[in-house]
Amino acid sequence: MDKKRLIFLTNDDSYLSKGFRAAVELALEFGRVVAIAPDRVQSGMSQAITINNPLFIRKVEAPEGAEIYAFSGTPVDCAKIAFDHIFATEKPDLVLSGINHGSNAAINVMYSGTMGAAIEGSFYGVPSIGLSLDDHAADADFEGAVRYGRDIIAQVLEAADRLPRPLCLNVNVPRCAADEIRGIRLSRQTRGFWREDFYAHKDPQGRDYFWLTGAFQNAEPEAEDTDEWALANRYVAVVPVQTDMTDYRMLSSLEGVIK
Amino acid sequence: MDKKRLIFLTNDDSYLSKGFRAAVELALEFGRVVAIAPDRVQSGMSQAITINNPLFIRKVEAPEGAEIYAFSGTPVDCAKIAFDHIFATEKPDLVLSGINHGSNAAINVMYSGTMGAAIEGSFYGVPSIGLSLDDHAADADFEGAVRYGRDIIAQVLEAADRLPRPLCLNVNVPRCAADEIRGIRLSRQTRGFWREDFYAHKDPQGRDYFWLTGAFQNAEPEAEDTDEWALANRYVAVVPVQTDMTDYRMLSSLEGVIK
Repeated sequence: MDKKRLIFLTNDDSYLSKGFRAAVELALEFGRVVAIAPDRVQSGMSQAITINNPLFIRKVEAPEGAEIYAFSGTPVDCAKIAFDHIFATEKPDLVLSGINHGSNAAINVMYSGTMGAAIEGSFYGVPSIGLSLDDHAADADFEGAVRYGRDIIAQVLEAADRLPRPLCLNVNVPRCAADEIRGIRLSRQTRGFWREDFYAHKDPQGRDYFWLTGAFQNAEPEAEDTDEWALANRYVAVVPVQTDMTDYRMLSSLEGVIK
Repeated sequence: MDKKRLIFLTNDDSYLSKGFRAAVELALEFGRVVAIAPDRVQSGMSQAITINNPLFIRKVEAPEGAEIYAFSGTPVDCAKIAFDHIFATEKPDLVLSGINHGSNAAINVMYSGTMGAAIEGSFYGVPSIGLSLDDHAADADFEGAVRYGRDIIAQVLEAADRLPRPLCLNVNVPRCAADEIRGIRLSRQTRGFWREDFYAHKDPQGRDYFWLTGAFQNAEPEAEDTDEWALANRYVAVVPVQTDMTDYRMLSSLEGVIK
């Protein structure tokens, strides 16, 4: 293993999360680590950027071989300041975003700040991996995510020169003992959407408030080539992500309709 | 025109923006309007959702035929509470998000809160249009956006029964006099990414701060089928948007590499 490699690390659960600390240890196995992570929880921040406020960065304690910065911006802001400021002279060999507390499979890829940062990182020509565990608990067991994350990182670094860019992988690890995971499956994003059930209540001043809760509605639970199927069947799901959102089929349907 | 239609309206520049007020007037030409818009500027909020905070809604003044609510959530939260709470018994005929101050062409579709809400709205089976003007000014001239927005809304409503779902259009209007616009072009999302130039300075306490600025790098400025080309040539660009982010070509490239 070439220990001179440089890994850029970020996430959306903040630099204080257990998953982030697991990612630091994992990334250090591959080389030096520079991490810029949100200074507070930024889950569900998607590809959000901070336009109207100044942002502050501070160095925090890190194990040997790692530099860790807490940043007041969104996960995507973390990736942007990394590549356009910190890495002005030296490009990392890999972007690792995570390890996320909670799955980012299916349409969650769009809401996730962890995947937002992973996607943003891939825009700079560097292979990028968003690594998530299907467990939201603050003290979740990351052993399986670390074990399979290690394999996938090694495979991506080994093949990096032969693969096209942008290269971004959405990796989701099932919630079970590491030994019970059945392997890795290349998958596609499951079709389906969330349906919300807003929790409505009154605050101490008597004002109505709403709190977002909901459930993912899988539109194709039987489809074995999807990331949700992989997770449900104790496989690690790997979905390559692209960002051309053009609906080419709809483009044909609209000929003569929109004019 | 069937004036009994119901239009759901939202945006990311808040219910106070000039573009939003122009959209209320435009939507009222087609029927009743229920608007839920952020109570403060939420530009660049992408598909972000609010997980960790309660949200508050309040009714604000509106012209006859319209109900307008200011909501403390993100643009996507606005769409979610509309469809999962307000519209529990009655579905709107159209989602209109905008009119946005600033273009959401090319990769901006991913960062935009206005497009985040438009995309989210399309998840509920209702035709959805994100309408943006290529002018960030608070007092921008929305005449061209209103004129072409009106044509596109009419065409979508007319063809709605024949078009598949989800149906989401990213409509961007060039910054020029309405009479100088040369027409509407069905387009695809331009390839290219932003490169940032962080503005770095010291605050009054002597702390370093960073402020995001940057420029879009068009990777294919000559491609006449792109939304950026349309805007640059004074056409209204219409890009249908989909949310399967799977990179199917990469999926093939990864066979035997990730295992």
